[in-house]
Amino acid sequence: MADQVRLGIIGIGNQGSGYAKHFDSGEWKLDIRLAAIADINPARIRWAKENLTGEIAYFDDAMAMLDSGLIDACVVSIPHYDHPKYVIACMQRGIHVLCEKPAGVYTSQVREMNEEAAKHPEVVYGMMFNQRTNCVYRKMREIIQSGRYGRVRRANWIITNWYRSQYYYDSGDWRATWAGEGGGVLLNQCPHQLDLWQWILGMPKKVQSFMHYGMWHDIEVEDDVTTYMEYEDGHTGVFVTSTGDPHGSNRFEVQMDGAQLVCENDELKLYELDQLEQEWTKTNKIPFGRVPGKEIIVETDGENPQHEGVFRAFAGAVLRGEPLIAGGEEGIRGLTLSNAMHLSAFLGRPVDIPFDENLYYTELMKRVATSRRKEGGSAVFADTAGTY
Amino acid sequence: MADQVRLGIIGIGNQGSGYAKHFDSGEWKLDIRLAAIADINPARIRWAKENLTGEIAYFDDAMAMLDSGLIDACVVSIPHYDHPKYVIACMQRGIHVLCEKPAGVYTSQVREMNEEAAKHPEVVYGMMFNQRTNCVYRKMREIIQSGRYGRVRRANWIITNWYRSQYYYDSGDWRATWAGEGGGVLLNQCPHQLDLWQWILGMPKKVQSFMHYGMWHDIEVEDDVTTYMEYEDGHTGVFVTSTGDPHGSNRFEVQMDGAQLVCENDELKLYELDQLEQEWTKTNKIPFGRVPGKEIIVETDGENPQHEGVFRAFAGAVLRGEPLIAGGEEGIRGLTLSNAMHLSAFLGRPVDIPFDENLYYTELMKRVATSRRKEGGSAVFADTAGTY
Repeated sequence: MADQVRLGIIGIGNQGSGYAKHFDSGEWKLDIRLAAIADINPARIRWAKENLTGEIAYFDDAMAMLDSGLIDACVVSIPHYDHPKYVIACMQRGIHVLCEKPAGVYTSQVREMNEEAAKHPEVVYGMMFNQRTNCVYRKMREIIQSGRYGRVRRANWIITNWYRSQYYYDSGDWRATWAGEGGGVLLNQCPHQLDLWQWILGMPKKVQSFMHYGMWHDIEVEDDVTTYMEYEDGHTGVFVTSTGDPHGSNRFEVQMDGAQLVCENDELKLYELDQLEQEWTKTNKIPFGRVPGKEIIVETDGENPQHEGVFRAFAGAVLRGEPLIAGGEEGIRGLTLSNAMHLSAFLGRPVDIPFDENLYYTELMKRVATSRRKEGGSAVFADTAGTY
Repeated sequence: MADQVRLGIIGIGNQGSGYAKHFDSGEWKLDIRLAAIADINPARIRWAKENLTGEIAYFDDAMAMLDSGLIDACVVSIPHYDHPKYVIACMQRGIHVLCEKPAGVYTSQVREMNEEAAKHPEVVYGMMFNQRTNCVYRKMREIIQSGRYGRVRRANWIITNWYRSQYYYDSGDWRATWAGEGGGVLLNQCPHQLDLWQWILGMPKKVQSFMHYGMWHDIEVEDDVTTYMEYEDGHTGVFVTSTGDPHGSNRFEVQMDGAQLVCENDELKLYELDQLEQEWTKTNKIPFGRVPGKEIIVETDGENPQHEGVFRAFAGAVLRGEPLIAGGEEGIRGLTLSNAMHLSAFLGRPVDIPFDENLYYTELMKRVATSRRKEGGSAVFADTAGTY
């Protein structure tokens, strides 16, 4: 076995060019060598040739790169609609593949991608869910899934610190359009939180979502979302997001039978009760009594390696069969939440999960059919450091 | 004009007996003298005679007390359904009156009460909205209503620290029943927050509420509520409450064009932006740019006199025409929110405000008709200090 993975990048827009710089500069010391880049935009290839120093092969056609024999693995960093197409192309050539979030725009295309993956067990298939590497979210998941504090009673995530300016939206004519992205804040900004939600809390059985399209920006897709959820056991959740709050919040709260967890701005607080509420209440005789408890210092490992951590695990999986941060087949779950929210808002009613994927596709395509691509928009490439 | 108000208390359950002790002990130094008490429960009158030392007249019939000539003013501290009846009886006798929250159970009865009040402009008519005396809520209102930071974009109140045990619910056979209280957490615990919501933010035009009845307790009314709201200008809000979260939250966040306010556990934080977002974004050319700003120390007057403050203002209104903390005619607003939330949950659809009050009454009475009064419940009176 080789001791390094030869990596190709499909698409060096904001995200892909960030990876290219990290690998090329040697800043990321991983068992990965950046071997090739493909982009259909000649300006991006020119930028890469001027700014990258390593021995890198360039392609204007991703399929040619996949067929070149120069790469063992590939990261797919292109607009969302095309993720499944190129991920499948990798799999069919035995090339290990890491897919950017979201896995795709609608679940039926991601289901096809997962079905293809099942035919290629030798191919490593991962999702770029870099937020799963954050110690606070890993710790929340560990605490909740341990069952130590009983069951979840309520979850509430206010993730409104995804502010985006009009200039951002004007920086690419595909941005924030039904045709170009297939949605707004849920498809571009929130795939991480939707993945973390299901990773930490599991999937709800029903959602009802309230969306506003272009409420805070001149865009056609949603930039303001409030979603109510119900789980199989009846407990509820609320997920609020927006790109229009100039100084928003990131506060994720989970109430359990025997504890409360609050993660705000990457700080995790745990309030631990002395007993599960349902036990304590059996013997309580104080009318206004409360379950005694105390705030606990939560110890995490402090690690939060983000994209570098996802690539490290990916290389480990390719070279040594080590576990991924997020298996590719898990990408469909957060997208299921996202699609269910959109479907609920489109129809103005609650939507059960699983929902009718064909109905969703039909509803989405109605919007794509009348989608406006913004006039006069010029592509602007931006440093995304610190934005995801 | 007399220099003291002679006060009568109708109902010395948990709340009224608390007032009686504060007045009788001299702890509250106000221009008020506790002159009479009425309660239909002989055990409570016995308790009062044994525990209170002042010269107080006792009545087993509130109407007799109102007709006795011994009192100038009255506080009505009885189960919610009867608030309007006794408040109206006071008004018709020229007795100034302070009504406990909620103003009533359904808005049509409170509308009658307000109509009666309009016929008696000489009668001081107040609501016991003691939370309006809290400096942090007064400051939030002042900041928001000044318009200095533009308009509200989003509001979110997680008020889930109303935990109540099963023992609490078992402490009175009228508690948490449709017949006895007309609702659960919205009618008993949340009238303060619903009043503050409308006082600080104004009334929404539409609500959709998701309720669970007896989810965390053996009760027939709601103990878990999530409500989504929309305002005339399209902006949204979320209100989440429960008596089932063993360690819940009290976090009220308001996002504006030019600031974010967060009030959590009586601490108020203000993040002030250098410009309103809609101005800043016109000239921004940084793709991932954000409106610059900083956290500001919010100065309040530090005062939070609660019930004592409401009584002080009430006495000032009676004796010297000074302003009340909350005029009686304002009680209908929070109840309108509450009723709209119930109606939305009963019908399983969004409800516009104003809603059909007769429809609400009909829906409520359906539930009252099949209401169970709990068997074997004995009345327990409890110290409510620190619970509202």
